[in-house]
Amino acid sequence: MKQQRVIIENISPQLHCGAFFVKRIIGDTVRVYADIFGDGHDIIQAELRFGHADHKGYTAKRMVHEGNDVYTAEFQVDEPGLYQYWICGWVDHALNWQHGIKAKIQDGQHVKSELLDGVQYLKFAQKAVSTKKDASYLSHCAAIFRDEKKYDEAVQEAVSERLGQLFMDFPSRKLATITDPLRVYVDRKKAGFSTWYEFFPRSTAPETGKHGTLKDAERILPKIAGMGFDVVYLPPIHPIGEVNRKGKNNTVNAQEGDSGVPWGIGSKHGGHKSIHPELGSEADLKKLIKSADKHGIEIALDLAFQAAPDHPYIEEHPEWFKRRPDGTMQYAENPPKKYQDIVNFNFDCKEYKALWNELLEVTLHWVNMGVRIFRVDNPHTKPYHFWNWLITSVKDKHPEVLFLSEAFSRPKVMQQLAKQGFSQSYTYFTWRVYKHELITYLKELTNTEMKEYFRPNFWPNTPDINPYHLQGANESQHAIRYTLAATLSGNIGIYGPVFEYMVSEPMPGKEEYMNSEKYEVRYWDWSVENKITRLITKINAIRKKNPALQQTNNLEFCDIENDQLIGFYKWDNERTNHLLMVISLDPHHSQQGMVRIPADKLPFSSDNGLTAHDLITDSTYYWEGEWNFIELHPDLPFHIFQLTARI
Amino acid sequence: MKQQRVIIENISPQLHCGAFFVKRIIGDTVRVYADIFGDGHDIIQAELRFGHADHKGYTAKRMVHEGNDVYTAEFQVDEPGLYQYWICGWVDHALNWQHGIKAKIQDGQHVKSELLDGVQYLKFAQKAVSTKKDASYLSHCAAIFRDEKKYDEAVQEAVSERLGQLFMDFPSRKLATITDPLRVYVDRKKAGFSTWYEFFPRSTAPETGKHGTLKDAERILPKIAGMGFDVVYLPPIHPIGEVNRKGKNNTVNAQEGDSGVPWGIGSKHGGHKSIHPELGSEADLKKLIKSADKHGIEIALDLAFQAAPDHPYIEEHPEWFKRRPDGTMQYAENPPKKYQDIVNFNFDCKEYKALWNELLEVTLHWVNMGVRIFRVDNPHTKPYHFWNWLITSVKDKHPEVLFLSEAFSRPKVMQQLAKQGFSQSYTYFTWRVYKHELITYLKELTNTEMKEYFRPNFWPNTPDINPYHLQGANESQHAIRYTLAATLSGNIGIYGPVFEYMVSEPMPGKEEYMNSEKYEVRYWDWSVENKITRLITKINAIRKKNPALQQTNNLEFCDIENDQLIGFYKWDNERTNHLLMVISLDPHHSQQGMVRIPADKLPFSSDNGLTAHDLITDSTYYWEGEWNFIELHPDLPFHIFQLTARI
Repeated sequence: MKQQRVIIENISPQLHCGAFFVKRIIGDTVRVYADIFGDGHDIIQAELRFGHADHKGYTAKRMVHEGNDVYTAEFQVDEPGLYQYWICGWVDHALNWQHGIKAKIQDGQHVKSELLDGVQYLKFAQKAVSTKKDASYLSHCAAIFRDEKKYDEAVQEAVSERLGQLFMDFPSRKLATITDPLRVYVDRKKAGFSTWYEFFPRSTAPETGKHGTLKDAERILPKIAGMGFDVVYLPPIHPIGEVNRKGKNNTVNAQEGDSGVPWGIGSKHGGHKSIHPELGSEADLKKLIKSADKHGIEIALDLAFQAAPDHPYIEEHPEWFKRRPDGTMQYAENPPKKYQDIVNFNFDCKEYKALWNELLEVTLHWVNMGVRIFRVDNPHTKPYHFWNWLITSVKDKHPEVLFLSEAFSRPKVMQQLAKQGFSQSYTYFTWRVYKHELITYLKELTNTEMKEYFRPNFWPNTPDINPYHLQGANESQHAIRYTLAATLSGNIGIYGPVFEYMVSEPMPGKEEYMNSEKYEVRYWDWSVENKITRLITKINAIRKKNPALQQTNNLEFCDIENDQLIGFYKWDNERTNHLLMVISLDPHHSQQGMVRIPADKLPFSSDNGLTAHDLITDSTYYWEGEWNFIELHPDLPFHIFQLTARI
Repeated sequence: MKQQRVIIENISPQLHCGAFFVKRIIGDTVRVYADIFGDGHDIIQAELRFGHADHKGYTAKRMVHEGNDVYTAEFQVDEPGLYQYWICGWVDHALNWQHGIKAKIQDGQHVKSELLDGVQYLKFAQKAVSTKKDASYLSHCAAIFRDEKKYDEAVQEAVSERLGQLFMDFPSRKLATITDPLRVYVDRKKAGFSTWYEFFPRSTAPETGKHGTLKDAERILPKIAGMGFDVVYLPPIHPIGEVNRKGKNNTVNAQEGDSGVPWGIGSKHGGHKSIHPELGSEADLKKLIKSADKHGIEIALDLAFQAAPDHPYIEEHPEWFKRRPDGTMQYAENPPKKYQDIVNFNFDCKEYKALWNELLEVTLHWVNMGVRIFRVDNPHTKPYHFWNWLITSVKDKHPEVLFLSEAFSRPKVMQQLAKQGFSQSYTYFTWRVYKHELITYLKELTNTEMKEYFRPNFWPNTPDINPYHLQGANESQHAIRYTLAATLSGNIGIYGPVFEYMVSEPMPGKEEYMNSEKYEVRYWDWSVENKITRLITKINAIRKKNPALQQTNNLEFCDIENDQLIGFYKWDNERTNHLLMVISLDPHHSQQGMVRIPADKLPFSSDNGLTAHDLITDSTYYWEGEWNFIELHPDLPFHIFQLTARI
């Protein structure tokens, strides 16, 4: 026999009945919608309630009816961490009374009885108001409502705006419906806008044939910072297993002097909390982090939760691993394939709590050394609930720590990892080449429920993926792929210097690199600059200046009658920055077409035409009509226009 | 630190996170879908569990992977009342082991160690199997798995189908994920297929100027049954209030001899549990119900929970009503309008429990007299939770009782009443006239979430609605409206005999009837038959014979290049009955057009053409191609074709 009269349903945003939080960046707003209605004709009111989970109490904001029983209100999130929000709705008998008496007075009816009836609402508000002035106004109203000689004055006050406002401000909320709280997790700005550069520190030695160190890596930071990157991600820096070590080009047995795979973690030199001796010391890492910070760069480390056969854990914690019936180690396998250089943790083992806690300790070890960003290797091969627990445990005390999910797996698997708490996710962008593929994928990311929890990070390449379209590709194709990533997504990254140096020789027939740095130390002349490094520098500078490019979801594709040209409009939340990108997908030929400006999406009129300023070439175009001509050549296959109104 | 490895999400059907049940009819199936997946590459399994809430235990059915991590299974509902269904999913280590050893054997690897590893799964299954034969087979397998001399045989059994089937049938379900139960309410057949006839029993006297009785009403049952109706709905049969009684044509003050409005319930003769003296006695009602039953008709009564000013409740239970400050009765109002012949219950009053219980008693009073169907008057002006409680309380002991929601209100209000438990709902069909309106509305009813809980009942007219398009309309228009209702919706109804006698004079400018039976007794010659009665008879007979018309959701509109022709295909759940309707929406002119047969929806090939048999005229057409010519004239403005394959 529930007495609530107001129904509140279909609250959005909401993920799986509140099982997961939605995500926002500091400074964002959360616009909440819900179906809210009562029975009968009574006036209903609803308020959105919200607050940071670390603080007591909540703030309330009256919701506005948008039609068809949909109510809405929004709130801004200014602190990192978890916020809660919920809705309270009620039949507002005081407002209802005022509505009724107004209608009767307009109809010329005598309302003596209605005035007397109204005294109960005056009394309630009188107790609730916060100023003496309001209290005495209400007490005056009550007196004249009861006094037949003051009928005319009473009628005037009964319908007054002042009384209505007091009823609005001090409602009784009798038999209110209050919904269960929903959650939004707020991250620092970098969760939504970051520019990553991945390189192997062992490939930074100043001369060929030497193993690079963290100190060497420190020396190339100025160049990376100069190109405009703000996250440097290092593949695992831990001791590399020596048992069953793999050789160059993924051969099964390493030769003398082969340096092994950084993801094959653990040897007599230590495990996940140690640093590979050839790279340097903890002091070197701390210095690298400090030095990076001066260049506006954060160092991201890799969390690769697996062990080489000679990892110290295997002796110290045999209970965390599976053994075969004959007592030998159960190496990783995906039958019939075997990976004898890797042993997986058994997350289902009896002692899983100790294992999970140790892996949390590993993470906190690096957090305590100043690391604030982790790229997580193959998270989809470990239990979802483990990640939820680990990420929650870390962020509970360190909400600034970010986790990038490196899962190139099935859609629902990748989505689930994001729901469980990963701050950013690798995507299928690496393989989306054609216009319709790009549009379909971006619409999925930005127009569906995914926009609430899945923050894409667009990588044209990674050490694991040398995509076919970049193998042997020219400058133009590299420029296209970088520009697409950098203007479509707030978070992007490249694996260098192979990307900007266009070193793209593949293992024949595979999307892998020949002589991959995963299996050997390479020497690079880090001082080289070329057209790609200069374009990257320019584009990254544009990203830093233009908030429209510092987010992903405000995106609208433009009509262009040429499948080799893709055009899209992006804007910032404040709607002050308006960019129109037109990018050719053809690295070999010129392409022309008419692009339609997104007139109905612009917050200003384009009736008098628009000014389109190309931020790369500094040219300015004056556009009169809706459709405008574009021609792009392979030597500069894109425009990044800033749009402004013409006065 | 939750250890479950399998994620189960997006279960459908599901309403608002399980807050409400979905609905089915006895014999229906419930097809359940869910996203189900684990981490890594392990084989997962899931089973749908279901059972009637009144019985202990549940049945389990293995779910099938449909691709993209979507799993499905279905179950049939054979009993009225509540069923529960939920999903259990797990990583299946035994099947995983068999999958792995298979791959290794095919790869030519030696699997001695894997065989030994498999013994643990044999042991588990051995304890679980139900026959000695299976147990000894498994014990034999365990023996040879351990015996190097029997290696070849062991390898053969390890990959055998028999072993795989035993693993399937007796899984260990370790660390299984089990979802919260969802609910489906199962109603008897009539909830989805019913043909209603509403009339005023006081208008059934055999001669003019007399007040008809329940006995008179009994005499016209054979005619109504003859037309094929199976529900007779009587407006309220209770004593009519005498204070502030309304006169003919809704005039404010009744004249001497005016008989009042049946919905103004309660007088010195009694209230909601009494029968209006001029209509007859309880014995007459019981006789009417019995007699109707012989004709295959159920008597539906009206639940109109409001009181006339002289209702006995007002003296007996003043606490259930609102009074004005001066102590006088608070009549119903929608300011500035006042309805002085009606007093509303105060469902929010302090003594609401007693009030709600009394209204339940009222309902059960008529249930105990044999009434199984109620049409509920204005349910949207009473609290939603009241209806949920009342309907649940009644159906708990009487699951066969059905409630029709008479709410012509906003979409979300009407939907909410259906969610809270109403078995059927009035709809906007009454006002949907044009082709695009009909198609849009039917798609909303049958293609959205509404199909899971909202059972439409299509009425061309009601005593409250004399729609503009029927005012002064010809035979053809009446035939069109009846045929649309009767072929689009499983549940339909008319208010007669004004519908079939085409008595449609309106109150000028309003969608109300002149000399409405709501305010006065009318005399009808119930023996008259005409073209409309004959068409209704024929169409209702077709509905009874064709299961495709005994449901609403299996509906596909056909392309016709004429906006005055609407065509649609309907089929039954067993896919044995295939009807194609083509209906002209023009009551004045002939209309021609090409209709496209729903070839891709038919379960048989139409490559050799189709036979289209018109069930009204008994003509047969042989259709060769996809598009076929149709011409309809106002004298018979529709086809109801039965489609069969040509051999």
